[in-house]
Amino acid sequence: MNVLDTIESVTGYRVSGVHAGLKKNRALDFALIVSDKPCVMAGVFTTNRVKAAPVLWNMERFERNPDGIRALAINTVSANACTGEHGMFNARRMAEMVAEQTKTMPHQVLVMSTGVIGQPLPMDKIASGAELAAQALGDYWHEAATAIMTTDTRPKLASVQVESRLGKYTIAGIAKGSGMIAPNMATMLTAMVTDVQLSPQVAQAALTVATNSSFNRIVVDGDTSTNDMAVMLANGASGIELSTEEDIAEFQHALLALSTHLAQKVVRDGEGVTKFITLRVQSAADDACAIKIARAIATSPLVKTAFFGQDANWGRIIAAAGRAGVPFDADRARLWFVAGDSPQYPGLLLFENGQPTDYAEGDAGRIMEASDIAVTLECNLGAGVTTIWTCDLSHDYVTINGDYRT
Amino acid sequence: MNVLDTIESVTGYRVSGVHAGLKKNRALDFALIVSDKPCVMAGVFTTNRVKAAPVLWNMERFERNPDGIRALAINTVSANACTGEHGMFNARRMAEMVAEQTKTMPHQVLVMSTGVIGQPLPMDKIASGAELAAQALGDYWHEAATAIMTTDTRPKLASVQVESRLGKYTIAGIAKGSGMIAPNMATMLTAMVTDVQLSPQVAQAALTVATNSSFNRIVVDGDTSTNDMAVMLANGASGIELSTEEDIAEFQHALLALSTHLAQKVVRDGEGVTKFITLRVQSAADDACAIKIARAIATSPLVKTAFFGQDANWGRIIAAAGRAGVPFDADRARLWFVAGDSPQYPGLLLFENGQPTDYAEGDAGRIMEASDIAVTLECNLGAGVTTIWTCDLSHDYVTINGDYRT
Repeated sequence: MNVLDTIESVTGYRVSGVHAGLKKNRALDFALIVSDKPCVMAGVFTTNRVKAAPVLWNMERFERNPDGIRALAINTVSANACTGEHGMFNARRMAEMVAEQTKTMPHQVLVMSTGVIGQPLPMDKIASGAELAAQALGDYWHEAATAIMTTDTRPKLASVQVESRLGKYTIAGIAKGSGMIAPNMATMLTAMVTDVQLSPQVAQAALTVATNSSFNRIVVDGDTSTNDMAVMLANGASGIELSTEEDIAEFQHALLALSTHLAQKVVRDGEGVTKFITLRVQSAADDACAIKIARAIATSPLVKTAFFGQDANWGRIIAAAGRAGVPFDADRARLWFVAGDSPQYPGLLLFENGQPTDYAEGDAGRIMEASDIAVTLECNLGAGVTTIWTCDLSHDYVTINGDYRT
Repeated sequence: MNVLDTIESVTGYRVSGVHAGLKKNRALDFALIVSDKPCVMAGVFTTNRVKAAPVLWNMERFERNPDGIRALAINTVSANACTGEHGMFNARRMAEMVAEQTKTMPHQVLVMSTGVIGQPLPMDKIASGAELAAQALGDYWHEAATAIMTTDTRPKLASVQVESRLGKYTIAGIAKGSGMIAPNMATMLTAMVTDVQLSPQVAQAALTVATNSSFNRIVVDGDTSTNDMAVMLANGASGIELSTEEDIAEFQHALLALSTHLAQKVVRDGEGVTKFITLRVQSAADDACAIKIARAIATSPLVKTAFFGQDANWGRIIAAAGRAGVPFDADRARLWFVAGDSPQYPGLLLFENGQPTDYAEGDAGRIMEASDIAVTLECNLGAGVTTIWTCDLSHDYVTINGDYRT
C-alpha cells in the first residue's frame, strides 16, 4: 500500500484554498471541500471538556445527518473557542454562508476553525472566504492543505489508491498541527475523504480504529486542544460499495496507512521540532499500561529537552516510566536506542538489570545526532505494547509559543 | 510567625558543607548534619516506582529506627539512581563512612544523593567528603545548603523560631530544586530539623500535613524525580517536649510555614524561571478535582511558555482545565489575573460566561510584566479548592536541560 504525499483528485470532490483576509500577506487561510453527492460522515472529536463552537456544530451534524454532508469549510487564525453563545451563532452563520455559496443546506455543511482561543470569528472575512473558495473549487488539494496551516511550516496532505477487486478507489486527507498536540480521542484538524460508498457504521468504525492507532498516538507537547477533530467523508462517487468483510478490511488497512502517514507528518512538523522519536513500549503489564508509560515519557520536558540537546540521558526515560502510575520495575526493564524511525534488534542496549550497560557514550552520541531516533523500552511485565510518535522540546518551541498571539 | 531566610543555630545540631571533589572548581558538594542526641525521624519519599538507592536506604531506616538517627549526609553530582545492586551497596557504604567519621552506627545515618541518574557514586570522593565534613562541623547551615545545589542558582535555607508557652524552640530546613519538580508525595531533597522532642507518630503526621500543603503543591516541569525525599529530625535538645494538642498544633503551624517558604524558594529558583505563578483553583467539584485542574494548568507547556512570553493567553488556561479529566464547565468558570503572589478580589477579570470579558489588553499586559503573578480560576461547581505554586517555561530551561550532562 503506497501512501503518496500528494492528492491528484478524488472522484466527486472539488476543493480549494483561498485568502479570505484572516492571515497577513495574502496567505491562504480558508479551505473548502465540496462533494457533488451527499456523504456519509464519520467523526472523532476532542475529549477536552471545553469544546469549540465548530466542534459542537459538527457533533450535532454527526448525531443527525439525514441528507448527507455536502461541504466542509475550514478557517484559520481564529479558533472560535471560548466564545460563548455568540460563538455558536457564528459557527452556524459560517455553515449558512457556505451553504448559500455551494447551493446546499446549512445542516449539510461541516465547519472547522483553528487559531487563537477566545477571539470572535470575523464574519465579514468568513463571508468573503466562503464566496471566494466556492468560486475557486477544483483539484486544489495543496492549496486547501496550505490554507489550514497555523504554526505549521508545511502543508500536510496524503492519499492512497486502492486497487480493490471491485475497482480502483481513493482515500485522501489533509491535516494540520502543530502545537497543543496530545490527542486523547481525536487530534488537531484532519479531514479525510473517500470516493467509496460505506455505511455510516462501517465508516465510523474504520475511522475510530484508524484514529486510535495514528492520531491518538502522537504527542508534541502534551496539550489537548479544544478544537481537535478528525472527520471522514465518503461520497460513493467511484461507484464502489464496500460491504463484504474482506473489502472493508482492505479499506481499513488503507485508511490506517493514510492516517499514520498524516499523523507522523504532524509530529515531524511540530512546533520547533528537530527530532522525530518513535517510542515503542513493550511487555508492559497490559496495553493501557504501555500507553501510560509511553505518554509519561513523551510528555516529559526533561526527556524532550535531552533529545534536543542530543544527550543520551536514558535516566530521564526510566524516571518518567517510573512515575507513570502503572507497574514498572527498573530491575526488569531494558532500553534500546537506534537511529531511524523503526525500532530494531539489536539497537544499542543502554540499560538492563536496573543499571546502565557498559555501552560507549560515543555510540550513543552518534545515534543522538540522527534526526530520527527509535527508542524501545522493554518492561518484561506482561503483553502490553504500544508505539507513540513524538519529538523534542527546543528553543524554537518556547519562542513560537511565547509570542504566538503577538 | 516569622520565617527567616537564615539559620543561626539549632540546639544540638552541628552542620557543614565541604568540597569532596565531586563538583568542579572547588564548589561545595557534600553536606553533613549531625545531632548530638539520637533523633526521632519523619519522612516522605518519592512515589516514583523507580526509587534511588539512598531513598530505599532511608525508607529502611524509617521502618526501623530503634536507636534514633544521628546523622544525615548529602552528596550532589551523582544521584545513585538506576545503579542496581551496586548502588544499594554504595548507599550503605556511604552511611558506614559517615558513621565512622561521626562515631555513630551506620543504621543511625541517613543518606541523600542528587545529580545525574545512572552514574555510580565515586566512593573515594564520598569517603573524603565524609571525613572533611565531619572535621568541619559547626553552625555552617549556609554552606550545607550551598553544597546540596545542582542546577539551583542559590542556596535555599530557612528557619522559624517559636516562642511557645514551654519556651523557645527552632525549626530549620534546607532544600534543593530545581528541575524534575512535580512531587506527588515528597519532592526534591528537603532536610528539616527541630530541637523539640516529638513522638515518631506526631513527627510523621506533622511532616505529612506540611508536605501535602507545601512541597506537594509546587510544579516546575511536571517530572517527579527518583530521588525526591523530605525528612525531618527531632532531637529534643531544647528540652521542650510537645505533647498537648495545643502545643502540637502550634508546631504544625510553624512547620507548615517553614515548608511553604522553602517550597516557594524551590519554584522561584526553578530551572530558567522568570515568573513565579500562584495558581488558585476554587469551587471545583471537590479538592481532588481542584488539584487535577491546577496540575493540568501548571504542567501545560503552552501555559508556561505564554507566561514566559508575557502573553495573557488565558485561552490556554481554560483549555488545560478542560482536559484535566474532571468536571469543568467553561460557561460557569471565571478567571482573574493579578500582579503579586496572592490572589486578590478584584483582580482583572478576563473570562466569564464562556467568553472573554471586555478587559483592556493593556491592563492584562501590565500584569504579565510582573515577576509574580497570581491566577484565580473559579469553577462554580462545588467546594473544591487548592493553591499551587508554579513558574514559566523559558529558553533557559531548554538550555539547562539540553546539556545537563555535558
